[in-house]
Amino acid sequence: MRILGIDPGYAILGYGIIEMRGNRFKVIDYGAVTTEAGMEMPDRLKVLYNSLMELIGRFEPEVASVEELFFNTNAKTAILVGQARGVALLACSNSGLEIAEYTPLQIKQALVGNGRAEKKQVQFMVKTILNLKEAPKPDDTADALAAAICHGHSAGARNRLKGL
Amino acid sequence: MRILGIDPGYAILGYGIIEMRGNRFKVIDYGAVTTEAGMEMPDRLKVLYNSLMELIGRFEPEVASVEELFFNTNAKTAILVGQARGVALLACSNSGLEIAEYTPLQIKQALVGNGRAEKKQVQFMVKTILNLKEAPKPDDTADALAAAICHGHSAGARNRLKGL
Repeated sequence: MRILGIDPGYAILGYGIIEMRGNRFKVIDYGAVTTEAGMEMPDRLKVLYNSLMELIGRFEPEVASVEELFFNTNAKTAILVGQARGVALLACSNSGLEIAEYTPLQIKQALVGNGRAEKKQVQFMVKTILNLKEAPKPDDTADALAAAICHGHSAGARNRLKGL
Repeated sequence: MRILGIDPGYAILGYGIIEMRGNRFKVIDYGAVTTEAGMEMPDRLKVLYNSLMELIGRFEPEVASVEELFFNTNAKTAILVGQARGVALLACSNSGLEIAEYTPLQIKQALVGNGRAEKKQVQFMVKTILNLKEAPKPDDTADALAAAICHGHSAGARNRLKGL
């Protein structure tokens, strides 16, 4: 199963593509799509959408695991990040991908075994599980890979329950 | 100039297309795209995007006037509506439309001459300016037409300043 993890944002959108075989993960590609602060929002959204469409076309994941947004911050910021999340979901949907969504708490729980784990712990687990030399940068990329691993664990658990 | 007004939402997205000739407006089409509560969010976003792409292809507006979201409500709702607004902006951007954005205050100011005008007053002005028999329903559709008229007024004022 090939999984595309996405941590949505309009300035930085983290992504990570991993392959799951049995209980093992292999990293395929990871990085971040960035848009410049001076760009108009519709243009930024277009860059995010087109970049994701291109990544999906190139690496052909079967499922997307998208981090849910969690905000203590104001509604204005939430709307802006929501816009980016919307076009990310649309790119996955228009490409026919299955889409799973996980909260930050679920992702931390899946990787560290503790929903209140710190960022550093999550990054350490991403690095270890994927056998990387360094924790991926920026944080958004590590978070995207964490979302992908989280879905792999969940899907793996479901398959074991089904006796697959 | 043909203007597409949009009032973004994920359950109801209001739209209205008007033609501006000189100082006069002619209504071309208006309505609302609705998505069912039971649908998954990526599917709802796909319906919104595809419906807007279809409308833009059919009526060929040159510019979109999109209402900015204003929220006192919680960040969770803001994210959901932001997602819908994101795909609406993307549909306009991917169709090559010029995009203008106005706050509810600016729209009320343009139609009623008072940024704190009530919904009923805005609806009455939409009905009057567009020479409609009844105020368009739902509210989202009236708001979309109001956004379109607001852009028409602003663009008209800019053109007069430029001596066009």
